Amino acid sequence: MHLDLALLGFGNVGQELAELLLRKRIELEADFGLTWRVVGISARSKGTALDPAGIDLEAALSAVAGGGTLAGLHQGPPLADTGAFIAACPAAVFFEMTTTNPQDGQPATDHVRAALGKGAHVVSANKGPVAFAHRELLALARLKRVGFFFESTVMDGAPVLGVGREGLPASHIRRIRGVFNSTTNYILTRMERDRLGFEDAVRAAQEIGVAEADPTLDVDGWDSAIKTVILANVLMGADLRPKDAAPVGIRDVTVDDVHAALAEGARIRLVCEAARGEDGTVRASVAPQRVPLEDPLASVMGTSSLVDFEADTLRRLTLIEHDPGPDTTAYGLLVDMLNIARGRHLV
Amino acid sequence: MHLDLALLGFGNVGQELAELLLRKRIELEADFGLTWRVVGISARSKGTALDPAGIDLEAALSAVAGGGTLAGLHQGPPLADTGAFIAACPAAVFFEMTTTNPQDGQPATDHVRAALGKGAHVVSANKGPVAFAHRELLALARLKRVGFFFESTVMDGAPVLGVGREGLPASHIRRIRGVFNSTTNYILTRMERDRLGFEDAVRAAQEIGVAEADPTLDVDGWDSAIKTVILANVLMGADLRPKDAAPVGIRDVTVDDVHAALAEGARIRLVCEAARGEDGTVRASVAPQRVPLEDPLASVMGTSSLVDFEADTLRRLTLIEHDPGPDTTAYGLLVDMLNIARGRHLV
Repeated sequence: MHLDLALLGFGNVGQELAELLLRKRIELEADFGLTWRVVGISARSKGTALDPAGIDLEAALSAVAGGGTLAGLHQGPPLADTGAFIAACPAAVFFEMTTTNPQDGQPATDHVRAALGKGAHVVSANKGPVAFAHRELLALARLKRVGFFFESTVMDGAPVLGVGREGLPASHIRRIRGVFNSTTNYILTRMERDRLGFEDAVRAAQEIGVAEADPTLDVDGWDSAIKTVILANVLMGADLRPKDAAPVGIRDVTVDDVHAALAEGARIRLVCEAARGEDGTVRASVAPQRVPLEDPLASVMGTSSLVDFEADTLRRLTLIEHDPGPDTTAYGLLVDMLNIARGRHLV
Repeated sequence: MHLDLALLGFGNVGQELAELLLRKRIELEADFGLTWRVVGISARSKGTALDPAGIDLEAALSAVAGGGTLAGLHQGPPLADTGAFIAACPAAVFFEMTTTNPQDGQPATDHVRAALGKGAHVVSANKGPVAFAHRELLALARLKRVGFFFESTVMDGAPVLGVGREGLPASHIRRIRGVFNSTTNYILTRMERDRLGFEDAVRAAQEIGVAEADPTLDVDGWDSAIKTVILANVLMGADLRPKDAAPVGIRDVTVDDVHAALAEGARIRLVCEAARGEDGTVRASVAPQRVPLEDPLASVMGTSSLVDFEADTLRRLTLIEHDPGPDTTAYGLLVDMLNIARGRHLV
């Protein structure tokens, strides 16, 4: 099988994906009979390249590593915007890796809709389209008999959605709990280990690149809410939006709170939860909670993350991803592409 | 799709599977388009029933629950032994659920070989055929283009092998570590919590049905060795046998050892490990080790179990199954059957 690929976004994750594709090229062909070629890259600040004959991916990586743009790799007339790029690009798979918009998931939702609409597969690391339009986009993908996978939206490359799809079939998941946000967990870890105040811990997270210059999305629980809603909608059949989780962040957690909890055998964690109530309705929540040290949720330190499934079949199953990074996010994208090549979207 | 099923073994796990099949009947048809019928049950002490027109599974459960045999459900001439049953039974899927023989995996390996040889799929909860003959049986299954799945052999129904196959494709797994044996972990937990001596803890495990009357296999590390070798052979390409893990059990661990470790911030766990060395060779080991409390391995209490994968893609991924039982083993068998119905053995 051969797949022509297009990358929407060429930041950290996009570049890691390019490097991983190059590193795994021989294995993908030997073990899965899969060959690939990148025919388009569309990046906000780094320009656009489209070449149906194939783009030299190493040249693309070099161009942006040197601070340049992709313009030199482009063939054909200039393209007005990402919509024009998607329409013109003859890729079989589009990777959506632009920045997540936490308000409405745009314009990434439009990107995904356009790509699926023309009968291409979509692999998304962007959480917006899944959190805001999963039902619609899944229906469109099924109509077109193409894949719409997004393993990297929750816990990077850890097979959280894959376990739901492949490992827990014919199960009713009653509750999903977890620690999904690396930045806040890193901040809480530094507040505990080094007795840093909240503001100092945020700065420490920014210094090592774990927190954004504006850490609001993470610190106020919105990133966690988006991920919680994705799991509730995809694995529990809910139709929630991030605001339905009414997230409470960690801004009001003090060093004293952290150490008082510890003295009583607990840790404060930003706990994400989706649970089906007696009435059958799934409710989502995100809030700091004291978690007993015996609970695996309390063992998650630094940037690691964890998810806990409770089902009618397996009573409780926990997954932990240790030390994630843009490279593990890229790996989740590669797995999605492989699962499309293996036809996992069809049965 | 319709599958005719045969059950080899009708003890705790076989009966749980029968109940789960009945409980999930409507869902399997609605969600997966899968209908099924049991056409044969072969049990050591409970007799044999073969009926190509379909066995009433509820009647089979009632018969054995009342201490009776399956003889009243049998149609046709008597069958000399399990080999004759397999030859005569027109099932598309054989579930191998007889007792694991830790010396050579027999006669279960012969059962699996015979079923695959006649072009039937095999789902095994029996660890013997996988630990002793995985390569041969997998080659036979591929030749016949049938499925040979065995998710329940390691950590019951937790998707350990499924994660290896579906969640970590195109990865090199460098090391697998875990706590795979419920009995020894329960014993170590009681030695810690209740300061029971080793012998008393074994008796406590026997009283609640966690340990066998003869606990040798568990206590001396052989069950752990078998599972470690299964993971090494299936997920790391090794070709080891249980004795290659040279298991050291927990017989010599004392209450004082357990509490001395705890005082120094560690727990004693029967750690199973398979690791690829510098020379490319995979080595397996099973031995009690002190594990720091921060390590998720130390957080596994009672009958729960854990596996930890280290790979070139995801740095470290941990799976924990909490509170397993014969019903979660049965769920692993059901998942394997579903994955056969979904053609997961073909791509």
